[in-house]
Amino acid sequence: MTEKIKWNHKDLVSLEPLSKEELIYILETAKSFEEVLKRDVKKVPTLRGKSVLTLFYEPSTRTRTSFEMAAKILSADTINISTSASSVSKGETLLDTVKNLEAMSIDAIIIRHSFSGAAEFLSKRVKASVINGGDGRHEHPTQALLDILTIWEYKNILSGLKIAIVGDILHSRVARSNLIALKKLGNEVRFVGPATFIPETFRELGAEIYYNLEEGLYDADVVMALRIQKERMGSGFYPTEREYARCFSINKNSINFAKKDAIIMHPGPVNRGLEITSDVLDDKRCVVLDQVTKGVAVRMAVLYLLLTGGKVEN
Amino acid sequence: MTEKIKWNHKDLVSLEPLSKEELIYILETAKSFEEVLKRDVKKVPTLRGKSVLTLFYEPSTRTRTSFEMAAKILSADTINISTSASSVSKGETLLDTVKNLEAMSIDAIIIRHSFSGAAEFLSKRVKASVINGGDGRHEHPTQALLDILTIWEYKNILSGLKIAIVGDILHSRVARSNLIALKKLGNEVRFVGPATFIPETFRELGAEIYYNLEEGLYDADVVMALRIQKERMGSGFYPTEREYARCFSINKNSINFAKKDAIIMHPGPVNRGLEITSDVLDDKRCVVLDQVTKGVAVRMAVLYLLLTGGKVEN
Amino acid sequence: MTEKIKWNHKDLVSLEPLSKEELIYILETAKSFEEVLKRDVKKVPTLRGKSVLTLFYEPSTRTRTSFEMAAKILSADTINISTSASSVSKGETLLDTVKNLEAMSIDAIIIRHSFSGAAEFLSKRVKASVINGGDGRHEHPTQALLDILTIWEYKNILSGLKIAIVGDILHSRVARSNLIALKKLGNEVRFVGPATFIPETFRELGAEIYYNLEEGLYDADVVMALRIQKERMGSGFYPTEREYARCFSINKNSINFAKKDAIIMHPGPVNRGLEITSDVLDDKRCVVLDQVTKGVAVRMAVLYLLLTGGKVEN
Repeated sequence: MTEKIKWNHKDLVSLEPLSKEELIYILETAKSFEEVLKRDVKKVPTLRGKSVLTLFYEPSTRTRTSFEMAAKILSADTINISTSASSVSKGETLLDTVKNLEAMSIDAIIIRHSFSGAAEFLSKRVKASVINGGDGRHEHPTQALLDILTIWEYKNILSGLKIAIVGDILHSRVARSNLIALKKLGNEVRFVGPATFIPETFRELGAEIYYNLEEGLYDADVVMALRIQKERMGSGFYPTEREYARCFSINKNSINFAKKDAIIMHPGPVNRGLEITSDVLDDKRCVVLDQVTKGVAVRMAVLYLLLTGGKVEN
Repeated sequence: MTEKIKWNHKDLVSLEPLSKEELIYILETAKSFEEVLKRDVKKVPTLRGKSVLTLFYEPSTRTRTSFEMAAKILSADTINISTSASSVSKGETLLDTVKNLEAMSIDAIIIRHSFSGAAEFLSKRVKASVINGGDGRHEHPTQALLDILTIWEYKNILSGLKIAIVGDILHSRVARSNLIALKKLGNEVRFVGPATFIPETFRELGAEIYYNLEEGLYDADVVMALRIQKERMGSGFYPTEREYARCFSINKNSINFAKKDAIIMHPGPVNRGLEITSDVLDDKRCVVLDQVTKGVAVRMAVLYLLLTGGKVEN
Repeated sequence: MTEKIKWNHKDLVSLEPLSKEELIYILETAKSFEEVLKRDVKKVPTLRGKSVLTLFYEPSTRTRTSFEMAAKILSADTINISTSASSVSKGETLLDTVKNLEAMSIDAIIIRHSFSGAAEFLSKRVKASVINGGDGRHEHPTQALLDILTIWEYKNILSGLKIAIVGDILHSRVARSNLIALKKLGNEVRFVGPATFIPETFRELGAEIYYNLEEGLYDADVVMALRIQKERMGSGFYPTEREYARCFSINKNSINFAKKDAIIMHPGPVNRGLEITSDVLDDKRCVVLDQVTKGVAVRMAVLYLLLTGGKVEN
């Protein structure tokens, strides 16, 4: 592991303000936690007496559960609040809700919200650590970190790779967080999909843009399919699911345009037969479940760094 | 306690594959955990660092809470997912959902699902232990185990008893699991209820069938009333609740046909005045709350055996 | 701290049966727990091996979370049940539900229910400790205790104060619990609001009644605004929100009638601009977030006293 760097971020809202060294530091910390996950007794006392709150204004199984597992393995207490059970319905403002929860001695708040910027807004107004669990179309930083940890494991390098991200880039916080971090680390990032899902202006963000799947996948080291929201189909973005699948699905044929040892990724949950065909999803090059496991390790690393500054021994 | 037997089942999906000796071994293990429940500090470190997930696709208070209590008393971490909050609504397959959750380092998954066979399907496809918390009309093994543990306590024997199970046998996973285990242990099992709820073919499963309540209860050691789904009334299965209660309710009169020291059981939640009248439910012979307490002990035993193979000392 | 008194209440349903000494004892115990909340490692082993259940038949973020935090910091296990996921929908009686849950080795049940008297009804029928988390229009004892702990901190005294409670007194369990406790401790309690919200008969409870805001606030040490249920507006109780805000909102002008160093309180969640204007809510004299923090300490004290009788060392 590289020498410990000084960690002084209270929050993880975006990957933008993190330096290349800080990104690598999180990934290395996550690697060390992966070892804990393989133990028979998956429990370390690192965050004993700390309280972690998941506050989800959008439904989620996987992200909420992943953070909850990460916190519990670190011995933190966890509290879950999802919209249906919350007083949001009682007309309280988001900031008042969060300030109130913080006042109950909560140390970290993981928030998922449909408004881009919700996490940043809160992070500047509360003393607790705020972790962005996905805000609108903006960012989903822990997803990108777990994606990159997975890429690192399979490719053994963190830079100089060609990564093709395929699908509804426009609405994807996953694509945006991955772009930011992958570019910082020195990779080529391609956005691949129909024009309605990738405005020309996205070029300014530093991505290559491909409106043709085969060209976009050509020689790629990593192929990352994004989830297609079924409600976008037939609503001006794309005519039908069948049409999308025919043109942009990662399948037996299209995957051949990528490198032979390319890995196939997806943030989940997958619509089988839409973004990826079932045979490719069940192929050995598909690392979707590794992504999930690494998600717990990455979230342990993030909770650990934000809540202790990396100073507590594990 | 009998000498420890070698436990080598990863899952508890059905009671069918368990030998008589294995059934008794679970019950004896549960008995030893009952003692923990009587302590002032109800906590043993047996499953520290293990993670137990409840994944309920049908609403349930009692079964979910009972498993959660069992896991917590054994020091396991628990995660709860119920349909409303899950990504099931996002079109992911059941297997993908479960494989993803397993990949987060979950050791045991307790699943309740409306499809008969859901638990078995999953158990063959994941490495985590799968515990059937009720699958459609198929089985509810921990319910039968807690019922038999209760019978054992009150009758002091595990075989040679006459057990009358009364109600909607057709739709009951509780009846089926009880039949399997009670027959294996050498008891007489009677299915009692209207013909629409007990097809003739059920005789082949090894049960005696009675369409008359008094005859079915005659000389019984145990009377187990099943929950009637109110939505079955007036829908081809039975004309009205009142009619059902008049013919098949366990009440002051009908209970007299059973042995004087017969115990009265019900898996809950009870519709007072429908399956059992209030006076009988509040009678001393009614052991419904003992069943609930023993439910926690049985689930501790099951979690312990599946996750440690019975090798960890308590 | 005063000498320890003998604590022999199993439940906290109402503040009515508590003596002045017992009220002060709870507050002093809570003060000692406030220190725990300031620690880096917020965890004491006091209630290890105890199980605390929150059973909420009405939605709530803050009260449920506050109790859950309190229990977890004391090392108790927690189980949450809210109506949507419960078997209430299955037609079981409230008492049967609670008796069943108690039979799972639950030590304390925190219940919120829309029926006034639900908590008392249960407390007399189960062995577990029952804590009233709000029952209809009746009481919300831990809310009043945290209010009084906050008043104590800011005013340094517990008696001889003028406390104005403003709003919908008729439907408020918070107002009723505060009245009982504040009177026992020797304070002047004023109910302030429109006549539809304060029947004349409330005078018999020992409160002063004011139908004019300025008169009600005059010379007050504490101003406590209650939450207005928006559904009461235009329904016979009050014409419009705007009209209510104009006459009874705590704002820059009306607050001047109170003492200069008066503190401003609210049980939350706040409708900004209705009960209190935003500028007053964000004023230094407003102690709403202190109330929330003290809520955790008070609930720790209550759980500790009910479950150990104050005999366990912290």
